[in-house]
Amino acid sequence: MTAMRIRIINPNSTASMTAKVAIAAGRAAAPATHIETATSASGPVSIEGFFDGALSLPGLLAEIHAGERAGVDAHVIACFDDTGLDAARALARAPVIGIGEAGYHLATLVAGRFSVVTTMPRSIPVLEQNLLRYGLAFRCASVRAAGVAVLALEKGGSAARQRISAEVAAALSENRAEAIVLGCAGMVDLAEELAAEYGVPVIEGVGAAVKLAETLVGLKLATSKAGGWATPTAKPYDGALAAFDGVGAGP
Amino acid sequence: MTAMRIRIINPNSTASMTAKVAIAAGRAAAPATHIETATSASGPVSIEGFFDGALSLPGLLAEIHAGERAGVDAHVIACFDDTGLDAARALARAPVIGIGEAGYHLATLVAGRFSVVTTMPRSIPVLEQNLLRYGLAFRCASVRAAGVAVLALEKGGSAARQRISAEVAAALSENRAEAIVLGCAGMVDLAEELAAEYGVPVIEGVGAAVKLAETLVGLKLATSKAGGWATPTAKPYDGALAAFDGVGAGP
Amino acid sequence: MTAMRIRIINPNSTASMTAKVAIAAGRAAAPATHIETATSASGPVSIEGFFDGALSLPGLLAEIHAGERAGVDAHVIACFDDTGLDAARALARAPVIGIGEAGYHLATLVAGRFSVVTTMPRSIPVLEQNLLRYGLAFRCASVRAAGVAVLALEKGGSAARQRISAEVAAALSENRAEAIVLGCAGMVDLAEELAAEYGVPVIEGVGAAVKLAETLVGLKLATSKAGGWATPTAKPYDGALAAFDGVGAGP
Amino acid sequence: MTAMRIRIINPNSTASMTAKVAIAAGRAAAPATHIETATSASGPVSIEGFFDGALSLPGLLAEIHAGERAGVDAHVIACFDDTGLDAARALARAPVIGIGEAGYHLATLVAGRFSVVTTMPRSIPVLEQNLLRYGLAFRCASVRAAGVAVLALEKGGSAARQRISAEVAAALSENRAEAIVLGCAGMVDLAEELAAEYGVPVIEGVGAAVKLAETLVGLKLATSKAGGWATPTAKPYDGALAAFDGVGAGP
Amino acid sequence: MTAMRIRIINPNSTASMTAKVAIAAGRAAAPATHIETATSASGPVSIEGFFDGALSLPGLLAEIHAGERAGVDAHVIACFDDTGLDAARALARAPVIGIGEAGYHLATLVAGRFSVVTTMPRSIPVLEQNLLRYGLAFRCASVRAAGVAVLALEKGGSAARQRISAEVAAALSENRAEAIVLGCAGMVDLAEELAAEYGVPVIEGVGAAVKLAETLVGLKLATSKAGGWATPTAKPYDGALAAFDGVGAGP
Amino acid sequence: MTAMRIRIINPNSTASMTAKVAIAAGRAAAPATHIETATSASGPVSIEGFFDGALSLPGLLAEIHAGERAGVDAHVIACFDDTGLDAARALARAPVIGIGEAGYHLATLVAGRFSVVTTMPRSIPVLEQNLLRYGLAFRCASVRAAGVAVLALEKGGSAARQRISAEVAAALSENRAEAIVLGCAGMVDLAEELAAEYGVPVIEGVGAAVKLAETLVGLKLATSKAGGWATPTAKPYDGALAAFDGVGAGP
Repeated sequence: MTAMRIRIINPNSTASMTAKVAIAAGRAAAPATHIETATSASGPVSIEGFFDGALSLPGLLAEIHAGERAGVDAHVIACFDDTGLDAARALARAPVIGIGEAGYHLATLVAGRFSVVTTMPRSIPVLEQNLLRYGLAFRCASVRAAGVAVLALEKGGSAARQRISAEVAAALSENRAEAIVLGCAGMVDLAEELAAEYGVPVIEGVGAAVKLAETLVGLKLATSKAGGWATPTAKPYDGALAAFDGVGAGP
Repeated sequence: MTAMRIRIINPNSTASMTAKVAIAAGRAAAPATHIETATSASGPVSIEGFFDGALSLPGLLAEIHAGERAGVDAHVIACFDDTGLDAARALARAPVIGIGEAGYHLATLVAGRFSVVTTMPRSIPVLEQNLLRYGLAFRCASVRAAGVAVLALEKGGSAARQRISAEVAAALSENRAEAIVLGCAGMVDLAEELAAEYGVPVIEGVGAAVKLAETLVGLKLATSKAGGWATPTAKPYDGALAAFDGVGAGP
Repeated sequence: MTAMRIRIINPNSTASMTAKVAIAAGRAAAPATHIETATSASGPVSIEGFFDGALSLPGLLAEIHAGERAGVDAHVIACFDDTGLDAARALARAPVIGIGEAGYHLATLVAGRFSVVTTMPRSIPVLEQNLLRYGLAFRCASVRAAGVAVLALEKGGSAARQRISAEVAAALSENRAEAIVLGCAGMVDLAEELAAEYGVPVIEGVGAAVKLAETLVGLKLATSKAGGWATPTAKPYDGALAAFDGVGAGP
Repeated sequence: MTAMRIRIINPNSTASMTAKVAIAAGRAAAPATHIETATSASGPVSIEGFFDGALSLPGLLAEIHAGERAGVDAHVIACFDDTGLDAARALARAPVIGIGEAGYHLATLVAGRFSVVTTMPRSIPVLEQNLLRYGLAFRCASVRAAGVAVLALEKGGSAARQRISAEVAAALSENRAEAIVLGCAGMVDLAEELAAEYGVPVIEGVGAAVKLAETLVGLKLATSKAGGWATPTAKPYDGALAAFDGVGAGP
Repeated sequence: MTAMRIRIINPNSTASMTAKVAIAAGRAAAPATHIETATSASGPVSIEGFFDGALSLPGLLAEIHAGERAGVDAHVIACFDDTGLDAARALARAPVIGIGEAGYHLATLVAGRFSVVTTMPRSIPVLEQNLLRYGLAFRCASVRAAGVAVLALEKGGSAARQRISAEVAAALSENRAEAIVLGCAGMVDLAEELAAEYGVPVIEGVGAAVKLAETLVGLKLATSKAGGWATPTAKPYDGALAAFDGVGAGP
Repeated sequence: MTAMRIRIINPNSTASMTAKVAIAAGRAAAPATHIETATSASGPVSIEGFFDGALSLPGLLAEIHAGERAGVDAHVIACFDDTGLDAARALARAPVIGIGEAGYHLATLVAGRFSVVTTMPRSIPVLEQNLLRYGLAFRCASVRAAGVAVLALEKGGSAARQRISAEVAAALSENRAEAIVLGCAGMVDLAEELAAEYGVPVIEGVGAAVKLAETLVGLKLATSKAGGWATPTAKPYDGALAAFDGVGAGP
């Protein structure tokens, strides 16, 4: 068995989400996999849309950098927007998996068409852009928003759960979806009961990403450095970005 | 750890290929995974193009049926053409993974663009059709054929290996590929040395499929029965198809 | 006038469907065209979805092989799923036309957008995959299922006809369809009256395929052997596939 | 047998091209088909690119109008650019076929990928736009120009033929084409010998269009009036367009 | 400041529309821009669908020719169908902008998804074909028709305005549009109030086209003559097309 | 004339590039346009690939924020990667234009197909992703890299210029490009002479973006807040992101 360390980074600064993610990751991980988690030191409290995603990047990349120095075997970005995935892959030597892409890829293995149910409408275009460039937009029946703020998921209560369930129902009946991908790291605890309720696969991305990370590490596959994910050219950084000074290679 | 039985079916009737596939599968599998292999009793000796693929289907599906009766946890179709994947998914309760799709999905996680190097030119359109419906054609830089017959890979010798290596080189230089997917189950033993030679990820599908099967089983994800992979309607079968009598459900 | 023999193969084993198909074919054929029909000896009683389609292939290809030995000028596959079309084209010297593709191509000549009305929901993804690889998905407004089993069409009665008509109406009003393609060989007898009822072209695939087969034969066009439809490589077959022993060419 | 009148319109004003087209049409037509031809009274002497195509439209549509009044069963537009096809379909009650689309559709029935060899480079975007909206761009390997003016084809001599042959060869070797569509009405006489020379299907559009017109008429299929090809609204025309006064219906 | 002359051509023959267009253009133009307008001498009274568009081309191109001889700096085609745009670009030395494309391009700069609200249903396919070849179909949420004839817009009254407003509302609520492009030159006067009513950008094409024409002239960008918009080959024209005699260059 | 303030932000920290950009902007701007420039206080010295782009975002967005507070009429992001464009549009009330998108849109107005010539190969996927989501990938013939580092463009000398010119030549001859878009803010000074040398439109993005910004402001068009560019939800920020505290609205 391949012993390995997988580091999961929550790019927002809300530690309760990291804790929830850690539970889902631990449930999915193989016995020989050591799961580590990190909460971004400088991101927004939640990531809802393009602006939040952009501001989370230095904090996220600092954690990727920290994980690299610590020699982890793989990184998981625990935001369903796959925030910073391309930049993280350029920076890292170890494989990097986003929980969004993880959910989509597995969905296509168990369903001809899947729908995504996410939190706020402003996140829909973020996810649609991702699906497009992953090449999987064609397999996605719809991206639906439940109108639930990310942090509302942390507070518990049944209102958020009901709204999400209603969108699952609508995706199945109106969009001919055959499986559901839950579109927020904060929804990881809903997958099992929604799957039972609706009788279709319901995929949460954290477990999916952990297994795909194990897969890549187990197969000794790492990010190609031949294209857009080549190691960054070394450049001087100071001020808020001083953490990255010395990153990169070559002239 | 999830103990599980994964059954790998070679849909052609050449046992030496099954043996080679078993080695690759065993190398990739987790300790708690029990790998079983089956060689089709009635397929062609190798699958090169649409006609061979079509004739392999009853034999392949009979093995899926056998695996289901035996209660395996997942099936892997060990032909890079992903022969019969849709039909197998309809038939099976357990997840089914094709080694072609497995290779493609992992390739997109480690490379922006990948090329496939397969055996004979007549297989190129088979693979291109698959990529199209998986939605991953957009990420594929090229599908190239080495002009090597499938069974020539079984005979060993360096000529086949040289031709394959030449296509890898051409994919990198001419098609801007960042990773290579080896397009035949018979090439599983070449991945490691080609990766070392060219410095890019080289993915063989058998290990990839075993890990994805483990992933789905570990996450308790099974094929959705809500769409095209619904359980077949029960129908009478006799003659060559008598093995399938009683398969299916409902009127 | 080009005298020619067109052989129509029903890949399921229900002779009453073959008879219905023969009538539609005879009505469409030119005087100098001799229509022959064959019912598969080994297929399922009806083809509903991927699994049925896969199991029909050896029986279908055996009939293609028989037609080739008999020297027919063209083959028509009388299943709207275009089951085995690629494999049949590889096997045959004469042109092969599927009734699904025939319907789609003609639809684009008389309508900017067409909808398909088929039998069971599980057939929708089969047809959508075909449309995608024919390149005609872009012109298809929707594929709709009437929830009518194929053999229910054989029993007559008005319930099936009503359901189909309702889907035609919905395609026109909801999907902006300008023409309808009837998505099952068993619907051939409904085209004329639905066209009269709705005032748009309603295309059944059997007549369409017969005319396209006449077209190719009349123009001396046969399947290119330069790509995926190249003649199969000769391979040993025995058991259930012994009929194919000796098929193919070359080493 | 369906007796029918098919009227072929050459939208340029060069009568020698009409004559050549008439020969190809006569060779393809069924015995009961009466072929009529018309040469545009007001078009350019040849159609090379968007500008020539635009100026040919009133003359072309006047001939469609004349054919309608004469009660023909189908119209063929004998310019490979399918000039004015949408407008002609709106105007006509009888089906209208363009020789370009005819060639493309038949090509997909005999080849996985086809290339087009046309005359001048400025025609390439015209044809690419057509392929895109027909939905067949995906099946087209390349559109290549031989650098031969349309009227040079009328003068005979071997230079034009050589250039065209060279592009056919290049399409097969460089673009993996499996069939060739000849991209100009003036090339109809080259198809047979190029097919013999290269061993792949070589399709000329005039015969293809005649057979597809016979197909539609034989199946009683006419253009849908439900969408963009609805009968034009009646409008006053005078001056150069006086011929169209009274065309159209409704307020 | 770049002083320039922009000539706006109304390709239909209704002068009141030209006057309305002139007002919108004047409002958008920079102080140093001189706006000239022309009404086609020979087009239909309004352009609704493919047939009207085709018949407007000689009149439109005659005005492009006139503008070129007069030395204008840019041409605007004031029909939302972008009628004759490719032919006009081939003919002209100065840049040519269609009001449809102008509206679409600006819409993508202020909205992730836009809807078009046009007049009659038969214009929908015309606009959809344009969007497809501009590459912007992917960003278009829907093209909707208000069922209002073009000339009804000239008569004023509130019925037309109400229908258009209803389609705007439907685009926002049903199609997730984030901006609206008004799909007819006759709607230019509605943009401001609809924008105020619905709180999203509402774009009319005339002002958009004037600004884009100023942009190209200001940047000294003119149409490339390297492809499909190359200067036409000189050809003899007489009769209704005599105006074009002498146009073009080379043999 | 619309008096307006356009603020151009160089998201890297190299002031000499800002100066070069300011010259190009000033040359393009209308007399009543006031051009302001800003150099990021915290970005990398140049932006080459995904990692540099990600790290430039807080600095870039801080400048967008500063411009908003200062009441500018439009923002231009002067990096050809259109770094942070979606986030900036969410943050700003005024329109935001990226120089990359500006170049692409104008290119499609003067050429059927354009190629991009950029600096380093690692930037190619960044630009290809942008083209894909703008919907303009279909019009792009190729994205080519000259192998020239961004800062090498600042040092002058002829080697960089020669490499760029060679890629322009290759795009025209090998990719059938009809126009060139220069793919780096540092190339603004090369457009005119390359256009003269090759006789096709050569577009630099800074001038293009300034004119498009003037266009939007002149037409009173601002970013829709109905979708992914909605105003960010207010969230607490501290540390390196304290500048954004108070940004956003609503709970």
